Amino acid sequence: MTAHPIRSRVVALMQALQSEICDALESIEAKQGSTARFGRDSWSRPGGGGGLSRVIADGAFLERGGVNVSEVHGELDPAFAGSLPGSGPQFFATGVSLVLHPQNPHVPTVHANFRHIQRGPVAWFGGGADLTPYYYDADDRDRFRQVWKNVCERHHGIADYEAYAAHCDRYFYLPHRQERRGVGGIFFDNLEIGADREHAERVFAFVKDAGQAFLSSYLPIVERHLDTPWTAEQKAWQELRRGRYVEFNLLYDRGTVFGLRTNGRTESILMSLPPTVRWSYCFEPQAGSREAELLEVLRTPVGSSAT
Amino acid sequence: MTAHPIRSRVVALMQALQSEICDALESIEAKQGSTARFGRDSWSRPGGGGGLSRVIADGAFLERGGVNVSEVHGELDPAFAGSLPGSGPQFFATGVSLVLHPQNPHVPTVHANFRHIQRGPVAWFGGGADLTPYYYDADDRDRFRQVWKNVCERHHGIADYEAYAAHCDRYFYLPHRQERRGVGGIFFDNLEIGADREHAERVFAFVKDAGQAFLSSYLPIVERHLDTPWTAEQKAWQELRRGRYVEFNLLYDRGTVFGLRTNGRTESILMSLPPTVRWSYCFEPQAGSREAELLEVLRTPVGSSAT
Repeated sequence: MTAHPIRSRVVALMQALQSEICDALESIEAKQGSTARFGRDSWSRPGGGGGLSRVIADGAFLERGGVNVSEVHGELDPAFAGSLPGSGPQFFATGVSLVLHPQNPHVPTVHANFRHIQRGPVAWFGGGADLTPYYYDADDRDRFRQVWKNVCERHHGIADYEAYAAHCDRYFYLPHRQERRGVGGIFFDNLEIGADREHAERVFAFVKDAGQAFLSSYLPIVERHLDTPWTAEQKAWQELRRGRYVEFNLLYDRGTVFGLRTNGRTESILMSLPPTVRWSYCFEPQAGSREAELLEVLRTPVGSSAT
Repeated sequence: MTAHPIRSRVVALMQALQSEICDALESIEAKQGSTARFGRDSWSRPGGGGGLSRVIADGAFLERGGVNVSEVHGELDPAFAGSLPGSGPQFFATGVSLVLHPQNPHVPTVHANFRHIQRGPVAWFGGGADLTPYYYDADDRDRFRQVWKNVCERHHGIADYEAYAAHCDRYFYLPHRQERRGVGGIFFDNLEIGADREHAERVFAFVKDAGQAFLSSYLPIVERHLDTPWTAEQKAWQELRRGRYVEFNLLYDRGTVFGLRTNGRTESILMSLPPTVRWSYCFEPQAGSREAELLEVLRTPVGSSAT
């Protein structure tokens, strides 16, 4: 399998995004007077390739956060190969993946991922970003979505915001709770580079722009809420909602389940799980509360006026 | 589908076990000066049947515990039917299922389940009990196993302790951690009642004896450790290990995954999840500590001398 000519620039992009994002998050910790910083764990994959996991814990801002880069290659598991574009067993994949769990329940959790995969002659991109608040704030949701809409519109003919936003809502959904995980964002997959060189450049430019837009989608939301005081009850509510995050990731998330079942690096895959979590039997927040407001939003089917 | 003549006695047994077990656990709460008691939530299943969930929370002994009885019938999901004995879409199932998460990290978590299923002309039993300690105590493990060995030996020709114990170790295993969930017990399935009336009575007698043995397998362990003081570090270790319990139940447990994917009652299925849970990146206990001792036991392959 010959490497697509764009590969080396994609690998460099993923590494640059990891550094840039970790630096920006660390500077927030520093401003808050915290000494928490991202560690660096290099790992190699028995089948080929490896990665660099960067994890932060017990910060003033981030209770736990992970920003992972991997660059792996080898032969696909036949059981999984059937679900992928391209042909043949040889594959290459690189990407950056992050999940940030703030201390403050007023600051939403965020997840983003940008990946490039090549299988035989076919190469494509996938990725996205989605926001999971513990208290609903329509401005946060609108601003977050607007960043991703603007990115997509800058790449007209390549990216389709409406389709990506709808895909995000469909994907981050817990059928057993009849709840969405969060308030949306974008999710795209199988965005093929194609044979045409100019088209490949345009696809790459979109993914690069999206990756570089992540901080501008999230940091303004952090700044708005980082200094809002919180109560023990609000913290418990955050931990309860984090339980839904765990349920989604372990029951439904394709990347998590696939990674764990194919001998991926467990600690890098599960860095997405929250630091402290709570389950409480049949808990329902008081009617009219801000907790109930969030549930109402997450339980309203996508496409209706309330979403 | 004609009900097997044993069915009404099985249903009565499951209900009696639930009452007896809840009563015994409540009396421990009372002795500890706690007012926590098991609630009663009746629910019905849209496809047919229903259940009674009994959950306790914030006790002096139990931080969270659930003892669930269900009696359901209807048509099997075709996607699931292929993995079951018997024939045809009609099924009936009843059982009692419990998970107890103590406050005190020195008291192990326990799970037990006894179930009766009929599909068309074939009816069978399944079930078992397994112990998940946070600190390893060889006496606890030995006494727990001995109770189940004794039960099986009282039903020679029906129950096979060695096979059931090995099944338990194989089933409660987390491949992505290369760890067993706990220190064993028994697990049996597809124990057919058969056409012979006397054989059916012998099978039922075994399951009844096993269900009634549960309290004697667990309560002596509770009594030994309930008053042992614990530190905040030991509590954090318990919460970290509870994370493995969540991982097992959401990633691998057949009953949990099947229940959630077939519109079971979510809160009754997930009453097995612990109340407070923690994930910490790449945590490894200090060499030589009691925490490290537990890990060593759980990571030692079954059948080697250390198990």
